[in-house]
Amino acid sequence: MDRSVSSFEEDSPVYTHQTMYLEEGMDLECGVHLAPLEVAYCTYGTLAPDRGNAILVCHALTGDQYLAEPNPLTGKPGWWNRMVGPGLPIDTDRFFVICPNVLGGCMGSTGPKSIRAETGRPWDSEFPPITMHDIVASQACLLDHLGIQRLFAVVGGSMGGMQALTWIADYPERVFAALPIATSPFHSAQNIAFNEVSRQAIFADPDWHDGHYRDFGAIPARGLGVARMMAHITYLSEEALSRKFGRKVRSEAPTAVPAASSPSLFGEMFEVESYLRHQGSTFVRRFDANSYLTVTRAMDYFDLAAEHDGDLSAPFRKCETRFCVVSFSSDWLFPTSQSRLLVRALNKAGANVSFVEIESDRGHDAFLLDEPDLDRTVRGFLNGAAEHAGLTKVEGV
Amino acid sequence: MDRSVSSFEEDSPVYTHQTMYLEEGMDLECGVHLAPLEVAYCTYGTLAPDRGNAILVCHALTGDQYLAEPNPLTGKPGWWNRMVGPGLPIDTDRFFVICPNVLGGCMGSTGPKSIRAETGRPWDSEFPPITMHDIVASQACLLDHLGIQRLFAVVGGSMGGMQALTWIADYPERVFAALPIATSPFHSAQNIAFNEVSRQAIFADPDWHDGHYRDFGAIPARGLGVARMMAHITYLSEEALSRKFGRKVRSEAPTAVPAASSPSLFGEMFEVESYLRHQGSTFVRRFDANSYLTVTRAMDYFDLAAEHDGDLSAPFRKCETRFCVVSFSSDWLFPTSQSRLLVRALNKAGANVSFVEIESDRGHDAFLLDEPDLDRTVRGFLNGAAEHAGLTKVEGV
Repeated sequence: MDRSVSSFEEDSPVYTHQTMYLEEGMDLECGVHLAPLEVAYCTYGTLAPDRGNAILVCHALTGDQYLAEPNPLTGKPGWWNRMVGPGLPIDTDRFFVICPNVLGGCMGSTGPKSIRAETGRPWDSEFPPITMHDIVASQACLLDHLGIQRLFAVVGGSMGGMQALTWIADYPERVFAALPIATSPFHSAQNIAFNEVSRQAIFADPDWHDGHYRDFGAIPARGLGVARMMAHITYLSEEALSRKFGRKVRSEAPTAVPAASSPSLFGEMFEVESYLRHQGSTFVRRFDANSYLTVTRAMDYFDLAAEHDGDLSAPFRKCETRFCVVSFSSDWLFPTSQSRLLVRALNKAGANVSFVEIESDRGHDAFLLDEPDLDRTVRGFLNGAAEHAGLTKVEGV
Repeated sequence: MDRSVSSFEEDSPVYTHQTMYLEEGMDLECGVHLAPLEVAYCTYGTLAPDRGNAILVCHALTGDQYLAEPNPLTGKPGWWNRMVGPGLPIDTDRFFVICPNVLGGCMGSTGPKSIRAETGRPWDSEFPPITMHDIVASQACLLDHLGIQRLFAVVGGSMGGMQALTWIADYPERVFAALPIATSPFHSAQNIAFNEVSRQAIFADPDWHDGHYRDFGAIPARGLGVARMMAHITYLSEEALSRKFGRKVRSEAPTAVPAASSPSLFGEMFEVESYLRHQGSTFVRRFDANSYLTVTRAMDYFDLAAEHDGDLSAPFRKCETRFCVVSFSSDWLFPTSQSRLLVRALNKAGANVSFVEIESDRGHDAFLLDEPDLDRTVRGFLNGAAEHAGLTKVEGV
């Protein structure tokens, strides 16, 4: 696995994203001034002359800016290819879509892999702790750079939804509509616990080297792989796992009960195991362990109510944003109950909010999958909001 | 951590269990003949002259035979101290209670730590794969050794419940009553997946040495610790985790958002993290990694219906056992739906079965905790069954 990781890294992919470079950098919530600041991003569609048709799509924990075009690192289609494009629910014939890599990430935005000006070496485990507010502030810098004062909409699933909510809390006047999907206004104790075990798996890897693995030419691939495998279970529902694998035994395994002649207890047995191992090993080829640690921490810190003496409606009092909150019935990582809490707080704040719980048995990952109800909800909400915003199709496109 | 593990092992605790030694051993389902066979066990109460008052209590994955007395290795009270004893729901004034360490375990029964006769060295990763049927067959040997032809009852939670069900399937004439708690007639795809990640965490530890860690004087403590941490999350409900920890930040951490002066991103932050790390590090002092691998595999193989062409009622057709099936409402590892499947199959088989779903927000672990409804259910079922069996209190006790 390590060998293939190295060779993967050696083939430099041709990145097609753009990068904002801000020499003066930004202040982080922790007090550190981070400079320079880079934000890598992709855009789709055409910015209207009045700059009023911009939609910011925020990615999830291990997502990136390659929203609707092949990812140059993995060669796979963009992660929301089926949602964003001409004539699709987030219609690039109509909207100008921006997708930035998060601060702390590893696909071009400033993060642990970036060179630290003071030392000329990567930040690695010295990278300062960041929060969802910092991530959103870096995106606000990007919008300033693009000359976009006000977003038509901010859209995001999972951690992307946390960013969408933070946008409204921090820049209420800069967003017309918000579409937080499969998300929560706080990271739960259970989710913090899962993240903590992910981190411990990375720390347990001898190739971790206290976060200075790059100095040793190493990658904590085993630990990061275990972290990804565990996280992956939480993204699926029991139903989805059962339907996909059930208790299916791999064809090369002779019987459910292993023969005594099998080399050892510890080979693969069930289809689900082989699938998870694959998930783990492909992930480490595209994601940096220090970024994983940095961004999971940012998720764990996230708790909008706690920042307002426990009043979740407080951060939404000043906004005139229209909300559409979406959850999935089988999502146990960000369950509907957490979306309901958010909706109640938005109602209390007098916000304009609609809420849809989509029936799906595919768990948290449903927001990335072919869910016609989600497509209809996104398309309907954006079209309705566009009408209220007085948006028309971009001329000549 | 490794140092304390070593010193822990060096202090030989004084074990108070008994051990059955069977020179001729037993045949395993995989075809291996395992000899000799040792089964370590504890007993409580007095065996009636007619040997009719015996209750077998089967322990869960990481349990052991120290059911109702201090565990000599950890110094902690027996794991079901509150359930088993004089006047308690499993009343040792009345019943003779036997609790064996499972085959494949690490507390005295034959398992990976045991010396292999052919080599004079521990089995370690060469230990043959075992199944729930093998575990129960080793317990049947123990009962033969004790001269107990028929159990009054078999009781067990979680993997202990899998053993209880296997008892009825394999020795229907040897059990009068069965009390499977928080369990399932098969291990689900999700649970197999969690087990697989546990195993991968152990394999990722360089101290694993392909299972021959003892030869290197090592323990894969980090990997086993991560495995335990992850498993521990699945034993608790979101409610239990939230109530216990919420998003509480440890007192030594200055603020929710870490100060820039904090040494790094990677210290402890939330109470739940500190708790999980503690769970992981104490576990590796008492449990053997190869046993963990062996016994989790036995759980994963478990699927009573699959052994009968998908008909879960088939293994219960010949029994006259009285069943009480118990689940907990917030148990997401062994959800009530799986108990219902079992109950339907038992009904189809014409078995005498009652079913109780206990309202609890403590998740899977509820069966080990102070749950008065569980106490009442266990006491009521055993007393009722004892009446039907014509059992009276043991004279002179």
